[in-house]
Amino acid sequence: MVTQKTLSLPPFPRGFHLITDLIKANLDLPKTGVLHVFIQHTSAGLTINENADPTVREDLESSFNHIIREDEPFYQHTFEGSDDMPAHIKSSVVGSSLSIPITDGELNLGTWQGIYLCEFRNEGGSRNIVLTTMS
Amino acid sequence: MVTQKTLSLPPFPRGFHLITDLIKANLDLPKTGVLHVFIQHTSAGLTINENADPTVREDLESSFNHIIREDEPFYQHTFEGSDDMPAHIKSSVVGSSLSIPITDGELNLGTWQGIYLCEFRNEGGSRNIVLTTMS
Amino acid sequence: MVTQKTLSLPPFPRGFHLITDLIKANLDLPKTGVLHVFIQHTSAGLTINENADPTVREDLESSFNHIIREDEPFYQHTFEGSDDMPAHIKSSVVGSSLSIPITDGELNLGTWQGIYLCEFRNEGGSRNIVLTTMS
Repeated sequence: MVTQKTLSLPPFPRGFHLITDLIKANLDLPKTGVLHVFIQHTSAGLTINENADPTVREDLESSFNHIIREDEPFYQHTFEGSDDMPAHIKSSVVGSSLSIPITDGELNLGTWQGIYLCEFRNEGGSRNIVLTTMS
Repeated sequence: MVTQKTLSLPPFPRGFHLITDLIKANLDLPKTGVLHVFIQHTSAGLTINENADPTVREDLESSFNHIIREDEPFYQHTFEGSDDMPAHIKSSVVGSSLSIPITDGELNLGTWQGIYLCEFRNEGGSRNIVLTTMS
Repeated sequence: MVTQKTLSLPPFPRGFHLITDLIKANLDLPKTGVLHVFIQHTSAGLTINENADPTVREDLESSFNHIIREDEPFYQHTFEGSDDMPAHIKSSVVGSSLSIPITDGELNLGTWQGIYLCEFRNEGGSRNIVLTTMS
């Protein structure tokens, strides 16, 4: 059985943001299955990482900026600003979707796991997410 | 309900290539569900990124080559050529599969999203893809 | 139809490890479907890569260490050791889950594809994996 819902997230500033509670509040989970979370954008992404120490989110932002740099001399796609092409690259590195097991009617995340929205643009605005449960 | 099909892609040159239409032409989609796309190779990958400006694809190729370099002195797996080990690394960075929501009988991609084949070898040849719909 | 099982892996040393047989030994696969493999940790990951030459696994470890470095001056999350923050970053790069098609009752991996546990901590200990089949 498949259920599906589209969720429009509020705008987040550039960076990595915990959205586990926001996602959970919009779900009516089956007993056993898989939740698929999909972001409909190419300059933002989704990942799972530490849900406790906020410096992990800050260090992820610093690290992605360090590894995938703005204003590389070989970029051609530059007309939308210095943050645009790096945002596309980062979105392919973290990916556009997550699949999470559902067990006993709950997301079966590990103790330290949270769902992150990765906002790679300076002014990304609202982002749409499609939530699909399969059971 | 699950349907499945294997697709043999024509050879593509090294680089990032839009294959959304090629995939769509081989699908008979259910009303609601998830499409799983899986590439059966370890030196190519699949990702979702911008479907409009072709320089995004060129910049992705330049960026991946810049971050994951050929001929690193610490590579041991070198007997298949300079492009081989970087291709393996890149395939783990972008991933071997995609999952895309199906809504109202269509792939529910965002306006700017397209499906990319990432061909990381100089002469990768034909690549096999397994398409599975779950509904 | 959905079946699910949790698997506790034995501790692996830091590095990339083939666990295809370990996963297969714990599965009773349907005829057609998708296997979802999920790791419940934020300093380890899962990927698919070459199952033959062991130097590919060693080169992946060297490359990830080269690209995502320890002791970057901008890291704030440092109290768990030099290997901790890089492990979080690497886990977001490779991802926490895999989805693999099931065809004729077998995992439909390519000839050269194997399932890897990516252990990014020096002493990661036992890791939990949730296996879900959808058919």
